[in-house]
Amino acid sequence: MNTFGREFRITTFGESHGKAVGVVVDGVPAGLPLSEEDVKRELERRMFCHIPVLNPRCEPEEFEILSGVKEGRTQGTPIAIVIWNRKVISSYYEELWLKPRPGHADLAYYLKYGINYDHRGGGRASGRTTAAIVAAGAVAKAVLRHVGVEVLGHVVELGGVEISATYTVDDVRKSWEKPLPVVDDAALEKMVEKIREAVLRGDSIGGGVEVWALGVPPGLGEPHFGKIKADLAKAAFSIPGVVAFEWGAGRALAKMFGSEANDPITVVNGRPALATNRAGGLLGGITVGAPLYFRAWFKPTPSVRKPQQTVDLGKMEPTTLEFKGRYDVTIVPKALVALEAITAVVLADHVLRAGIIRRDRPISGSLV
Amino acid sequence: MNTFGREFRITTFGESHGKAVGVVVDGVPAGLPLSEEDVKRELERRMFCHIPVLNPRCEPEEFEILSGVKEGRTQGTPIAIVIWNRKVISSYYEELWLKPRPGHADLAYYLKYGINYDHRGGGRASGRTTAAIVAAGAVAKAVLRHVGVEVLGHVVELGGVEISATYTVDDVRKSWEKPLPVVDDAALEKMVEKIREAVLRGDSIGGGVEVWALGVPPGLGEPHFGKIKADLAKAAFSIPGVVAFEWGAGRALAKMFGSEANDPITVVNGRPALATNRAGGLLGGITVGAPLYFRAWFKPTPSVRKPQQTVDLGKMEPTTLEFKGRYDVTIVPKALVALEAITAVVLADHVLRAGIIRRDRPISGSLV
Amino acid sequence: MNTFGREFRITTFGESHGKAVGVVVDGVPAGLPLSEEDVKRELERRMFCHIPVLNPRCEPEEFEILSGVKEGRTQGTPIAIVIWNRKVISSYYEELWLKPRPGHADLAYYLKYGINYDHRGGGRASGRTTAAIVAAGAVAKAVLRHVGVEVLGHVVELGGVEISATYTVDDVRKSWEKPLPVVDDAALEKMVEKIREAVLRGDSIGGGVEVWALGVPPGLGEPHFGKIKADLAKAAFSIPGVVAFEWGAGRALAKMFGSEANDPITVVNGRPALATNRAGGLLGGITVGAPLYFRAWFKPTPSVRKPQQTVDLGKMEPTTLEFKGRYDVTIVPKALVALEAITAVVLADHVLRAGIIRRDRPISGSLV
Amino acid sequence: MNTFGREFRITTFGESHGKAVGVVVDGVPAGLPLSEEDVKRELERRMFCHIPVLNPRCEPEEFEILSGVKEGRTQGTPIAIVIWNRKVISSYYEELWLKPRPGHADLAYYLKYGINYDHRGGGRASGRTTAAIVAAGAVAKAVLRHVGVEVLGHVVELGGVEISATYTVDDVRKSWEKPLPVVDDAALEKMVEKIREAVLRGDSIGGGVEVWALGVPPGLGEPHFGKIKADLAKAAFSIPGVVAFEWGAGRALAKMFGSEANDPITVVNGRPALATNRAGGLLGGITVGAPLYFRAWFKPTPSVRKPQQTVDLGKMEPTTLEFKGRYDVTIVPKALVALEAITAVVLADHVLRAGIIRRDRPISGSLV
Repeated sequence: MNTFGREFRITTFGESHGKAVGVVVDGVPAGLPLSEEDVKRELERRMFCHIPVLNPRCEPEEFEILSGVKEGRTQGTPIAIVIWNRKVISSYYEELWLKPRPGHADLAYYLKYGINYDHRGGGRASGRTTAAIVAAGAVAKAVLRHVGVEVLGHVVELGGVEISATYTVDDVRKSWEKPLPVVDDAALEKMVEKIREAVLRGDSIGGGVEVWALGVPPGLGEPHFGKIKADLAKAAFSIPGVVAFEWGAGRALAKMFGSEANDPITVVNGRPALATNRAGGLLGGITVGAPLYFRAWFKPTPSVRKPQQTVDLGKMEPTTLEFKGRYDVTIVPKALVALEAITAVVLADHVLRAGIIRRDRPISGSLV
Repeated sequence: MNTFGREFRITTFGESHGKAVGVVVDGVPAGLPLSEEDVKRELERRMFCHIPVLNPRCEPEEFEILSGVKEGRTQGTPIAIVIWNRKVISSYYEELWLKPRPGHADLAYYLKYGINYDHRGGGRASGRTTAAIVAAGAVAKAVLRHVGVEVLGHVVELGGVEISATYTVDDVRKSWEKPLPVVDDAALEKMVEKIREAVLRGDSIGGGVEVWALGVPPGLGEPHFGKIKADLAKAAFSIPGVVAFEWGAGRALAKMFGSEANDPITVVNGRPALATNRAGGLLGGITVGAPLYFRAWFKPTPSVRKPQQTVDLGKMEPTTLEFKGRYDVTIVPKALVALEAITAVVLADHVLRAGIIRRDRPISGSLV
Repeated sequence: MNTFGREFRITTFGESHGKAVGVVVDGVPAGLPLSEEDVKRELERRMFCHIPVLNPRCEPEEFEILSGVKEGRTQGTPIAIVIWNRKVISSYYEELWLKPRPGHADLAYYLKYGINYDHRGGGRASGRTTAAIVAAGAVAKAVLRHVGVEVLGHVVELGGVEISATYTVDDVRKSWEKPLPVVDDAALEKMVEKIREAVLRGDSIGGGVEVWALGVPPGLGEPHFGKIKADLAKAAFSIPGVVAFEWGAGRALAKMFGSEANDPITVVNGRPALATNRAGGLLGGITVGAPLYFRAWFKPTPSVRKPQQTVDLGKMEPTTLEFKGRYDVTIVPKALVALEAITAVVLADHVLRAGIIRRDRPISGSLV
Repeated sequence: MNTFGREFRITTFGESHGKAVGVVVDGVPAGLPLSEEDVKRELERRMFCHIPVLNPRCEPEEFEILSGVKEGRTQGTPIAIVIWNRKVISSYYEELWLKPRPGHADLAYYLKYGINYDHRGGGRASGRTTAAIVAAGAVAKAVLRHVGVEVLGHVVELGGVEISATYTVDDVRKSWEKPLPVVDDAALEKMVEKIREAVLRGDSIGGGVEVWALGVPPGLGEPHFGKIKADLAKAAFSIPGVVAFEWGAGRALAKMFGSEANDPITVVNGRPALATNRAGGLLGGITVGAPLYFRAWFKPTPSVRKPQQTVDLGKMEPTTLEFKGRYDVTIVPKALVALEAITAVVLADHVLRAGIIRRDRPISGSLV
């Protein structure tokens, strides 16, 4: 199932070591400003070249928009984006043939898809495939921009180091000028230290991120099975490596009394509004005009340079694996960008479902 | 959006103080054993009569199966189940008219659905509506029983009290003989104490639950947007009050090194298997034959007997609300049963999607 | 698969001789005028009491709206409608046990659903189940009324008698005051004669209908798989007995030259418009502001009072069947009302998909 | 809406004069034989080089499979196929700018998508886009081959000439060795004559086709909204130019008495079977083991070399259009191949929905 969304729909494809990864984005209103530059910018945001260990070669992606866009405007028809895979040295993976890497999807894919599965580089389960989601996110963000919604995330935990500073939305925006988007400089320093330590150990680390959606209008989301938080939870767990998800003040709420957890309601500018926002901008899964926010946690990337116990599936006997292929010390920063993207996809979908943008006529360029 | 699932689909309806809540379950294979007794049993599991404060009157639900079942067998056609609402005293809610209760869905519903919305008892957002999900769960469990899958949950945290004992699946099964399904007797005692305390304060408490799925065959779930954990996260956040969700070892994994987090792979009975199960039975979102497990946390129920700050939407000015209607000190136990049910729905859906049960012919009663 | 539609969704249930048939209508905007009277009126339109052989007892349906409507307004939540089946004498069907009636769905249901299937009265395949679609159509028509769209059909062929008169939309409207909605009085007389003849023969007849949608705004429908005519073709073939469907001028277009078939384009009231309407109001499957129209043909009802060759599935040997149960000389008039209803469902869905009605706020009763 | 199907899903993209058209095919079981040759063969079947006026240059398509296939086997992951558009001379279309061609989708697209829409060559509404459907059909046919189902069509009417010979399935198979797949040689001669006449007139012609599905197992299709004929009707009307669709004996059934229309049931090889097949292999929309067949009619292609009345949308005044771009005297043969393809897509979807092919494990290459 590689299609996601109801009115704003994305369909992804591609394996890590195949010809390309890509996405078809369908349901986009016509006449919306969208250029290759918009896609390029989002693909660049996931490069993190300032921390070389995260992206040694730091080359830009080669991508093409095959359809649905003309002269900087969407056409209303499906937008197909292909991101070409680079020539990669896959020979190493021959050695891994039939030896599922612990923690990777390999074993599951062998069982479900068989020995012919192209597991090189993680195949369809690779973090590489999130590039397609990031491209789709660029289109979704163009839709959201039209209705004044901004989606923005930052790293809140890495290798066990958590941020402790309080911060504003502006701090989050500015954090993107740092090597990693971390609002707390002291924590950032320790995180970079932790990355170094992990590299030295030949090991990997996990972490956590927070994503905000600002300017979200009230009335988005629907009971029982169209709640914003439910759709975003599904979206988040679709990004490889997610192991935990908390909405608003999250798990801390479970330890409070109701009188402590409830957000009082007040009047702001003649409209009812939440006085605090432990609820993360939702009541009954429906937006009320307050910012949305959630956190997600990622397990460490499974590839490590240490001997691990696995099975030789050909002989069906235990064996030891020392992985020597390309290895990510952490996928948290890249995954954050993918999480932003999929968040934008969910919200663009709900904006369209709610009818906030009409699609019987173009946003611009109407004739009559 | 009140339909959920792709091949095994449920469509729910009903308001708290309307005539009925209910569900249409579609996609059920024909010839499967299913009786009113199966539905009754699940609806009873959410009553918790041994702790009177959770359910003072403790009357059984009145429900009817309107279609799709004949002489203890499913017909292959949609199964409509109506659970009649009892005569309820709604007059109290007149007082609340236009005063959204903090923490409840009221404000969102007023904004989205308008002043005519039947907010009494929480309307469509009420925990009452999960009775329909529990009924659907009874059908899903019948499907799962046919393929040897069992779904079972227990309470792991209530009012800040967490269980600390280690436990087996059998302990979980046996815990259902206690007033609340808690494997740790010392914790159970403190939880009941906490309930009493909350009642005395006129306040409410939240908590956490864990759900297991045993006997799940390998090969269920699909990339990118059909991962089992993603579908279950969406399902869980569809149950009112869920604020956090962790898959397998969850957030703790984010603090480990990769070499600590990965489950080694070994050979069991001539088949590859996980040696440990921090992954909660999934790799790449696909089952590998190990048990599935996750935890979910619930905020305290928003209705409390303390003055709370809200807004009179008629006058659009601040006011204070003292709620006097029916009030649940905690919804965690009931919500656990709903979470079990929706988990069964997701897994039954994936069993059908994978083609494990054929639907071009009946399970029993085939002619040719 | 008993759910239909994307934003305006209906889920039907019920067997002919079960407790009830019914429907859950989801996605309906809040604050729309809708009463039990609206549903009653549509259910009455399919009664045709003036031709007693079509409906001997002519009793009104007993139905209940269980949810989603309050004080004559939709709530925005799912609308469940149950239409109770009358006490029926099913004993006759015992005789038919394991003898599939030729032309009926019996054989297919036996093969797919097994010997336990409740085939009495046609079970799930019965025309009876279209009552649920007609009820859903009442809700869809309320949505369409809000945007100025009217759906209206008439009978154009019955028992081989075709109408020959030309007619206006007003003629179609007025035809509903006749025993059958037929614009051509001479043809109507022959049709009634044909009904009598068929009854005397103990046989059944088929026919054809035409459905119009007036006031449809331009811009509805989408390539490749959201074309209005494609969605309506699917909808039409979902009504039992449909064997042919023609859009606009239909099959006659296939014999014309392009220069004869194309509708010239002209300017009307400062807007581009079709000068003729062979296209049935669609170009590329998308509405252009002209009326929509299509025709559908129904085979004769399969139950006849003549000996028919079938198989005794128990002994698996040929046998002869003389059907003596309740029998419809023709279902064309009832089916027309169902076709109108499902047409309204499709158009309401497209109105919502296009965002013509916003659903982040109510149509009436908005607070802010 | 450019996605079609539930378990076997296709998502198409591309404009006539854009970079490419293409499709993502999702839900394909793993381990199924599939090569580039399979796609090439289907794309070649729509070329009809023996009648030069149908395809003057007769060059093969350039296409790439970007994902989901490895060494002649499906991977179980989405299969993306890109068919590159050739360099085309689009300059002619400048002249057409803002002058919608009668009968084309232009007007609808201008209204819905605005003046920026890339209408060149018909844009998204072009017959060109059916190449993507044909490519998807190649994958669907590979699925069907695995379960013994064959889909095959032929031309039954062209430019008003109808075939009159009776014919067998073998005749249909052999007809593909002729310049056009027509079973009746006399009719074929007249059709070719009609093509010549239309070319001389600078006009275009329509026609009709018949599609058969052989070897379809019983039990496919579901009430109310999963009937095979309903899904195929929707599929057919998704192909540009379809104006009529008849299932089985079609419209002729509407003129019969029930006793004439019903297919008797008999015993064949110890199983119940239809003695005749006016029903087109379906009862209640569900397959019973008999061959499926339907007919579809196409209007003439709208582009003709005669002056036609249209509107200059810039000045909003009437004007005359003489089309001089590339022009198809008829699209019926190409459309037939597209109709075969989409029929295969629908049936592959139902085969998977019914669970006839399991997808928790590969068809070939299973490990355990």
